[in-house]
Amino acid sequence: MGQMRQIARREDISDLILDGVDALLGRYGYRKMTMEDLAAEVGIGKGTIYLHFPSKEEVVLSHIDRIVDRLLDRLREIREEPLSVRERLKRMLVARVMFRFDSVGHYTQSLNDLLSALRQEFLARRQRHFQKEILLFAEILEEGRASKAFRCDDAKATAQTLLWATNSLLPYSLSAKELGRRKEIEAAVSRTADLLLDGLTTGLDRT
Amino acid sequence: MGQMRQIARREDISDLILDGVDALLGRYGYRKMTMEDLAAEVGIGKGTIYLHFPSKEEVVLSHIDRIVDRLLDRLREIREEPLSVRERLKRMLVARVMFRFDSVGHYTQSLNDLLSALRQEFLARRQRHFQKEILLFAEILEEGRASKAFRCDDAKATAQTLLWATNSLLPYSLSAKELGRRKEIEAAVSRTADLLLDGLTTGLDRT
Repeated sequence: MGQMRQIARREDISDLILDGVDALLGRYGYRKMTMEDLAAEVGIGKGTIYLHFPSKEEVVLSHIDRIVDRLLDRLREIREEPLSVRERLKRMLVARVMFRFDSVGHYTQSLNDLLSALRQEFLARRQRHFQKEILLFAEILEEGRASKAFRCDDAKATAQTLLWATNSLLPYSLSAKELGRRKEIEAAVSRTADLLLDGLTTGLDRT
Repeated sequence: MGQMRQIARREDISDLILDGVDALLGRYGYRKMTMEDLAAEVGIGKGTIYLHFPSKEEVVLSHIDRIVDRLLDRLREIREEPLSVRERLKRMLVARVMFRFDSVGHYTQSLNDLLSALRQEFLARRQRHFQKEILLFAEILEEGRASKAFRCDDAKATAQTLLWATNSLLPYSLSAKELGRRKEIEAAVSRTADLLLDGLTTGLDRT
């Protein structure tokens, strides 16, 4: 019991540190931010941060992991909404782009900086994020296939195709200028989703 | 007449310089390559290179421009092939990914290096490349609409959607590991293209 409380507190501190990273990325950007700044922001000792994260790189990458974990929660919520399977899948596709977009909205200028510095590590991490997303999207595709709403032979392969087809709209692939244009990005992902969903329903009887 | 010959020669030298860049990116990578190396590779003086390109950044970006110019030529060729409009559009989509893929195949390891260093400039350039591609894809979409092969209200917007939906498969967005998997990338772009094209033909009478 005592140990469980300790583990819980450990996670709380990690969360506070990641909140601090989020604030500092907005204020200083990745390169200028130091572990000292972060300790001061959170109000704890630098040593405590190193107990949780081995390096500045790692704390920033964990911050990105947290954005994706929250996105996955959001996608699970949408999957349960009382809407048609097509509408839910569309909303999930739009959400996977816009949730990330909004999560980095306060540091679009420094995102370039961050991604230049951590490109390689970020790309490796991204693979794991996509794998988790694929499982969620495969589930709703299976549901749509079962109810004859979608034509889809291989749910995982189709899920991967849907992710590939919207990945270029993720913040990682956008310039700082493009990251300033929320409405345009939302319109683009919506059009892409519609076209893909039309593809998934081709040849089905819609009465 | 004399002036025209001089202009032609100027372009030949530029082309030779860009061939040199291509070879050196494979041998040294972006960061290690110097303008001295390039001059030695081409067999001209360093001063001559600076007459054509103001900086190492610029010569590498021009090298990327040339890849895209050659791709545009290839896309125009495909557009004229004696195949159905759907098949030509599919081949154009696959080509826009695989042509770039094959163009950087000999320096996948150093591509990361190059894109980290030139990310900002590259993203700005990329916008112009996409604008040219959009025009070409809009033309074939118009053709498909006229022959009732596609359902498409706004050819330019649809062209842009097709590019967004395949952009995440371009070398720029791939890790070095992914760049080693030609068959997987080709399969992914082919699946994406099929799904998009099914979307473009939904609701059309296909007899």
